[in-house]
Amino acid sequence: MRPADLPFTKVHGAGNDFVLLCDLEDALDLPPAAVRALCDRRRGIGGDGVIRVGAPRAGVDADVFMDYRNADGSIAEMCGNGVRTVAKYVADRGIVEGDVVRVDTRAGTKHVRCHRGSDGRVTGCTVDMGAPVPGVVGEELVLGDGSTVTVTTVSMGNPHAVIVVDDVAAAPVHVVGPLLERHEVFGEGTNVEFITVPDRGTVHGRIWERGVGETLASGTGGSAMAVAAALVGLADREVDVHLPGGILTIAWTDETLFVTGPAVEVASGIVDETWWATATGGT
Amino acid sequence: MRPADLPFTKVHGAGNDFVLLCDLEDALDLPPAAVRALCDRRRGIGGDGVIRVGAPRAGVDADVFMDYRNADGSIAEMCGNGVRTVAKYVADRGIVEGDVVRVDTRAGTKHVRCHRGSDGRVTGCTVDMGAPVPGVVGEELVLGDGSTVTVTTVSMGNPHAVIVVDDVAAAPVHVVGPLLERHEVFGEGTNVEFITVPDRGTVHGRIWERGVGETLASGTGGSAMAVAAALVGLADREVDVHLPGGILTIAWTDETLFVTGPAVEVASGIVDETWWATATGGT
Repeated sequence: MRPADLPFTKVHGAGNDFVLLCDLEDALDLPPAAVRALCDRRRGIGGDGVIRVGAPRAGVDADVFMDYRNADGSIAEMCGNGVRTVAKYVADRGIVEGDVVRVDTRAGTKHVRCHRGSDGRVTGCTVDMGAPVPGVVGEELVLGDGSTVTVTTVSMGNPHAVIVVDDVAAAPVHVVGPLLERHEVFGEGTNVEFITVPDRGTVHGRIWERGVGETLASGTGGSAMAVAAALVGLADREVDVHLPGGILTIAWTDETLFVTGPAVEVASGIVDETWWATATGGT
Repeated sequence: MRPADLPFTKVHGAGNDFVLLCDLEDALDLPPAAVRALCDRRRGIGGDGVIRVGAPRAGVDADVFMDYRNADGSIAEMCGNGVRTVAKYVADRGIVEGDVVRVDTRAGTKHVRCHRGSDGRVTGCTVDMGAPVPGVVGEELVLGDGSTVTVTTVSMGNPHAVIVVDDVAAAPVHVVGPLLERHEVFGEGTNVEFITVPDRGTVHGRIWERGVGETLASGTGGSAMAVAAALVGLADREVDVHLPGGILTIAWTDETLFVTGPAVEVASGIVDETWWATATGGT
């Protein structure tokens, strides 16, 4: 089932882009085939995922639910860049009043604080990501090709292994990334980050995302970079993390970690009815 | 200058996708930066190009003008897949009545015949591409790596070199494509096509587009495949050309060539005003 006119909004957070469907009455059936069709960059709208903005789930004290789907149609628990775009969407439209949006996600309720530009619209948000869990600091690992890397590990709910390099632009992301991702010490695999730290308030980083490859930005990846840079003694606990897709500002304590980053609306409109019927096989 | 609400439509023809902007009063200023931003697949809407549908140019007897821009902001003369989506757009909306749309392009006026589905909306179009100009048939060329290929060349206004292979899925598109594209016998370079011809009415093909790389579909590329398959004696003059992005039906005589293919509307809406101002630097 879909409404005759299915509205969508194309949004991105630091280059991580989504097709957002507002469905506050939970009326929309969204089969995996529809998600894949919507995310198809040439035959659909295109995106890293679909975010259905629904009503908070039963018993959850929140404003909206972020029902995140990966481009392959599977369900994801949480997306740090996506949750900012959800907050912007509902704050800009007055669906939620005030500057804090409580977003129910499959990884718990996130409190997202909105920052506004001179026109009153939201330009970016701060998300409380929960406490980072440091792992090893500066430990040497031998990779499958016989080379050696020095990693610092951090859990942000998901695993990260961070490597300090001289020049992140020249880092062997596509060689070391896949080797380290599947290294035997990481049972479920790991995300891999490469960082350069030019001063105590700045980190430049690139991300090898587990199961995906190199990506433009990641909220948990940027967080892990900031934590690792402090753990190895190169940075303070407030840093700007420069990623290929944009800048995330990280501030953290032992109790929790805040990520501030951009939230951008590109366009909004209606999904074509004939296209939807064909793409989803008539559902 | 842009209108406060800038409408757009995302369309594709056999997987060749475009951001279509309807601007029949020629009011829209569309600088290269705006085109690049619109075509950005992560920070914009995403597309192989932008098509501004304007009024026919002065002195041209046509219904609309297809002002085609490549994703890099440059101007292109013509796009066989794009011109079908233009015809569908204006026919579906009643901007042009009847089933033939005369589209003014920088390569001349194209007469596009629309085909409709059971709901009355356009599903595909037939385009008169003009006469193909055969070149050499089955000529051996030595490539830069010392290997040899047998090519048949066809001009569709732009140059094509077609190679018959046993299995197009296994064809060395990414090895032979770049070597042949820049072979010294082609002054301005050439598009390269690889075909398999299972029967006299069917061609399976893949395209290496000059200056671009492998693409999902090309109207001129599909045309050249059909002509070459006939020139080497494997096919008749009416064939279905199966490309990775979809099927084009080609019928040709010595006087002209018709391409029939799909035209799909994915979604339509409004480009965000703040996004546009940022993306285009305030223009």
